[in-house]
Amino acid sequence: MAGNTFGEAFRITTFGESHGTAIGVIIDGCPAGLILDLDFVQAELDRRKPGQSKITTQRKESDTAQILSGIFEGKSTGTPISFLIPNEDQRSKDYDHNVGPFRPSHADYTYQAKYGIRDHRGGGRSSARETAARVAAGAVAKLFLKQVAGITINAYVSAVGKMKVEKPYTELDLSSAENNILRCADPEKAEEMIAYIDGVRKAGDTVGGILTCVAQKVPVGLGEPVFDKLHADLGKAMLSINAVHGFEYGSGFEGATLLGSEHNDLFETDFSTRTNNSGGIQGGISNGEDIYFKVAFKPVATIMKGQDTVDKDGNKVELHGKGRHDPCVVPRAVPIVEAMAALVLADHYLRNKNAKI
Amino acid sequence: MAGNTFGEAFRITTFGESHGTAIGVIIDGCPAGLILDLDFVQAELDRRKPGQSKITTQRKESDTAQILSGIFEGKSTGTPISFLIPNEDQRSKDYDHNVGPFRPSHADYTYQAKYGIRDHRGGGRSSARETAARVAAGAVAKLFLKQVAGITINAYVSAVGKMKVEKPYTELDLSSAENNILRCADPEKAEEMIAYIDGVRKAGDTVGGILTCVAQKVPVGLGEPVFDKLHADLGKAMLSINAVHGFEYGSGFEGATLLGSEHNDLFETDFSTRTNNSGGIQGGISNGEDIYFKVAFKPVATIMKGQDTVDKDGNKVELHGKGRHDPCVVPRAVPIVEAMAALVLADHYLRNKNAKI
Amino acid sequence: MAGNTFGEAFRITTFGESHGTAIGVIIDGCPAGLILDLDFVQAELDRRKPGQSKITTQRKESDTAQILSGIFEGKSTGTPISFLIPNEDQRSKDYDHNVGPFRPSHADYTYQAKYGIRDHRGGGRSSARETAARVAAGAVAKLFLKQVAGITINAYVSAVGKMKVEKPYTELDLSSAENNILRCADPEKAEEMIAYIDGVRKAGDTVGGILTCVAQKVPVGLGEPVFDKLHADLGKAMLSINAVHGFEYGSGFEGATLLGSEHNDLFETDFSTRTNNSGGIQGGISNGEDIYFKVAFKPVATIMKGQDTVDKDGNKVELHGKGRHDPCVVPRAVPIVEAMAALVLADHYLRNKNAKI
Amino acid sequence: MAGNTFGEAFRITTFGESHGTAIGVIIDGCPAGLILDLDFVQAELDRRKPGQSKITTQRKESDTAQILSGIFEGKSTGTPISFLIPNEDQRSKDYDHNVGPFRPSHADYTYQAKYGIRDHRGGGRSSARETAARVAAGAVAKLFLKQVAGITINAYVSAVGKMKVEKPYTELDLSSAENNILRCADPEKAEEMIAYIDGVRKAGDTVGGILTCVAQKVPVGLGEPVFDKLHADLGKAMLSINAVHGFEYGSGFEGATLLGSEHNDLFETDFSTRTNNSGGIQGGISNGEDIYFKVAFKPVATIMKGQDTVDKDGNKVELHGKGRHDPCVVPRAVPIVEAMAALVLADHYLRNKNAKI
Repeated sequence: MAGNTFGEAFRITTFGESHGTAIGVIIDGCPAGLILDLDFVQAELDRRKPGQSKITTQRKESDTAQILSGIFEGKSTGTPISFLIPNEDQRSKDYDHNVGPFRPSHADYTYQAKYGIRDHRGGGRSSARETAARVAAGAVAKLFLKQVAGITINAYVSAVGKMKVEKPYTELDLSSAENNILRCADPEKAEEMIAYIDGVRKAGDTVGGILTCVAQKVPVGLGEPVFDKLHADLGKAMLSINAVHGFEYGSGFEGATLLGSEHNDLFETDFSTRTNNSGGIQGGISNGEDIYFKVAFKPVATIMKGQDTVDKDGNKVELHGKGRHDPCVVPRAVPIVEAMAALVLADHYLRNKNAKI
Repeated sequence: MAGNTFGEAFRITTFGESHGTAIGVIIDGCPAGLILDLDFVQAELDRRKPGQSKITTQRKESDTAQILSGIFEGKSTGTPISFLIPNEDQRSKDYDHNVGPFRPSHADYTYQAKYGIRDHRGGGRSSARETAARVAAGAVAKLFLKQVAGITINAYVSAVGKMKVEKPYTELDLSSAENNILRCADPEKAEEMIAYIDGVRKAGDTVGGILTCVAQKVPVGLGEPVFDKLHADLGKAMLSINAVHGFEYGSGFEGATLLGSEHNDLFETDFSTRTNNSGGIQGGISNGEDIYFKVAFKPVATIMKGQDTVDKDGNKVELHGKGRHDPCVVPRAVPIVEAMAALVLADHYLRNKNAKI
Repeated sequence: MAGNTFGEAFRITTFGESHGTAIGVIIDGCPAGLILDLDFVQAELDRRKPGQSKITTQRKESDTAQILSGIFEGKSTGTPISFLIPNEDQRSKDYDHNVGPFRPSHADYTYQAKYGIRDHRGGGRSSARETAARVAAGAVAKLFLKQVAGITINAYVSAVGKMKVEKPYTELDLSSAENNILRCADPEKAEEMIAYIDGVRKAGDTVGGILTCVAQKVPVGLGEPVFDKLHADLGKAMLSINAVHGFEYGSGFEGATLLGSEHNDLFETDFSTRTNNSGGIQGGISNGEDIYFKVAFKPVATIMKGQDTVDKDGNKVELHGKGRHDPCVVPRAVPIVEAMAALVLADHYLRNKNAKI
Repeated sequence: MAGNTFGEAFRITTFGESHGTAIGVIIDGCPAGLILDLDFVQAELDRRKPGQSKITTQRKESDTAQILSGIFEGKSTGTPISFLIPNEDQRSKDYDHNVGPFRPSHADYTYQAKYGIRDHRGGGRSSARETAARVAAGAVAKLFLKQVAGITINAYVSAVGKMKVEKPYTELDLSSAENNILRCADPEKAEEMIAYIDGVRKAGDTVGGILTCVAQKVPVGLGEPVFDKLHADLGKAMLSINAVHGFEYGSGFEGATLLGSEHNDLFETDFSTRTNNSGGIQGGISNGEDIYFKVAFKPVATIMKGQDTVDKDGNKVELHGKGRHDPCVVPRAVPIVEAMAALVLADHYLRNKNAKI
């Protein structure tokens, strides 16, 4: 009801605020017998953590996950797996100037109105810090998908501002995304985009971008046909990530411009399809082709430029960003998008076991 | 788990196949005391029913909803409200040619693979006929939102193929959409689009399109901040509709191209915002501005042109569409999109009652 | 939230009031491929229907279930299975005397207070008529359990008023319960009890009783270890049946009087246990032994004797029962208890598939 | 699905094993604005902790709860409230003798069979240690119920072995239960029972017992009428506590022996009832009278006497209990029963807000 839980069969619940003691997550429903590679979990967190490069926030947090339960002799036991990530370097004073003003396009006003009380030290629960808990849980989901079915999930930056990777994912080496600080799978574009973001940062501004995500070796049959279509759950997962304003899969918005005779994916005799406008999902159910989708992120709301705003009594005030924020959220969003995709796929993998007798 | 239920506090469960006895819906969680205007429910179903115009399927079904429970002396009683919509005019023989072939970009193959059994008379459960049940339930949600808070929801066709309504919704008379068979709120564009669809239909083809939906007078505070953000639930709702390939709200994909200084919505002293790139939602919670979003529909998969495909044993066969299908799904999708939006808002309206003591 | 749904993986939602058009149920999550023996479903409903004998209500309803969806060529398809049971012979006038008075120990007052509106024609949603929908769904769960694992479930009357079957279930022929109108597995006791109930009926009174239920051939591993212990879900299922005031399993309340050395069930080398005080469940998980439990039903609240009560304005009135009610609910409760047990076991059977990789 | 979550609107998820790093709980859905008295939370944990007296286990754990999130300036913020309780004094070697043998009437065998892996250091997740997390969450629920409605919940020991408190709760001073180490509200009986338990302990044995619990000042209207009846959820809550074998409310099993004319609770003109066989609940909904129920606990399975058992390969072995276990679970169960009752009532208090417009 209060919305801090995601998934049904492979289910996570997260807790914690940006400036409290710790954040964390409980994974309920991970089957017993999974080899829990905790180094991998930490490596995933490291991909998300702040302070990685000049185009991410300079805030330093080690984001070290402690496992508290659900493991015995290196394997999952079928009981809840929980991770705790202590908060460090909170520098609440960076946020003291925020006690009064409602920051534009942040959640300050809506939280205050909804709850009548607000932890004004940073974003509290609305901070993207909460996504570290998702990444830890998503790492376990990735391990699960890999161990039971060889499924892989790779996201990369495909647009920053008005700059786009023109090639489709099929013409890119997805693994190359980790070779640059932007996590863009097109090395040449990456350089241009990084330079652009650096300029935006120096101007005290921020910019939006787009991620593309691809899941491969997904078996046929994942997804429930009516409300819990596989792409509907992927869409919700992505839209639940801070700053996301759009989601499309397969042919996406472009597909709306096509004719049926152009769009239909014809079957081969092995039930693969010649084209993949369906994005690997037909009728809400995976069909064995690659699943791919795009996620649009708005520009980060905290900018270093002065902005007019109001305080909680409606008085006009001018706001000057301080703190240490990301000029562009997309490089750090890559592991988050992958994590949420992994959680959706793990959930539907388990749910699909009951499709037939 | 099997995904035929949507919502938490205002919750619906649908049942029924296109060629079975009936379809229907149970609404659980509608508060007692709502005036249940059954004529309005039927009027909403009439907006979705087939056979309305030359640009929709010529199949004729009256789609008459019978209320079975949850009403006493014209009001809701707090018990489950259920509607039954008998199937008529099923013409199973129109579909006999489908016993063998898997129709391209339909759910035939994935259902067969997932369940090992398939009702091959039309789409079965994957048929868009299921959405009639959603429209009936959505009509009750609309009545609820109107009676408790004056909330209104209006969708209209904003693109067909490559043709687009260029004006933003704020410059259109939304109520005018019902004046043309396309349900486009731009009368001039409507005529062009209708002519285009008619040509596509005559060519035996189909085409995609986009809907824009606007919810007004939504109070501040709806939406839960982490996984069940208001726009995440709207996104899932829309993506669960047949043929939807994309969802964006507020600035959407375009927002990803902007700078923070361009995108941020500055507050006025009454907490309204000068711009509304946030689409009426900040941090997942409604902020009192208009909520607006777009939904992309792929072209209908059933075309009257011959297509290569395979049967369930992988043998090549040629498929020739017969039946009576829509050349473009968007006009009939308008009440469906509104219904799903109403269900999400009703659900979050109830959930928000527990935000504070 | 509004509580008309039961189960997670094998999930039912019921609807309908005693004096509305129909009642019914949707089963969501029944795997595809189950042979749906509709004659069996009807036979189960016939065991519950009114008018079976002199010791049940004389109201006559055929309780004919129509299947509306989820079946194709005799098998389940994986989509929602729904049953509709039209109401007949409602004789609303039998209840006209109830418009004003709150019937003692009925739900009239609490419904009025909770919802502010009440369908005063009989019990509305609180009527035991709702359990017919459970029996139809439970029959499908029984078919499922039988077809996948050979599981059988048998309940019988083990006490009426102060009269008890002294023998444990292990010394009775459970199938013999269907040979008498009381559904008591002890033929001699049955005759005495029937005579007693008949006397109670003639005196215009009612009496309570106890059912014992036994599930056999349940595989090891069903039940989730913390909140959703198998016996906790069985307990909730039973306590959700009208008029139930108590539940115990295995050694039950008597077990609380024993020493650990008396109560512990020692293992044999095949992991069976010498005794079964655990009632087939250890740590909330089935252990392969028989599962058995008892369910206590209070006397039916509607009596033919005059009773003092008040109307909705708090004025004193005298109430004289008319209508046609059961002198003792237990014979008709047998199929209801079995149905709810089957629903719990089917749910946990499916959930257990994800215990380990 | 995996059953580590309880409640819908006021929802808890627990994690942790007896011999892992820590146990804990997340509370999701507690409204903002609650004054979080952390001393009270700790005091409740102290009532449950081991080592309190000669009739409880001599194991010493401080059971100190750390709050990690959901609090700001002493009040709840509407975000998840989480507590961490580190494990101390685990003495795994006390349990080393358990690596092989399946302890009779414990969950060793069923866990091994269900999960294929087992944390054999004590009970792991099946240990009653998990209930500390419930007590912490229940303390918050108690604060909530007190602050919003003045509701109080008191449990006490009403039977140990064959010894019973004969007086009904209405003739006892419930607050006196805290005056003796047994938590029995009848001081004279308490002494006898304590002496008896001490004898059982010295004999290396254990004994069962019964708790009575009373909730007062519960407003009319809590509980959902069909599956989520208030007493059904209370029953499930109690049956989910380790070692519970039975639950009854109001007249309970005794009620099954009565006539309707004896059992019915007649209304007064203020809608109170002359008697309270209904236990404060009619049709699953609270009616404003006291809610009372009983919970039966079997004897603790770990005894100090030798027992025959088998190891995981089915070989016969003799087991000699060591460790430090409770001779009778009931005194420490008092705060657990109260906590679970509080969680159910808080959940239904929130859910009831949506009963009518």
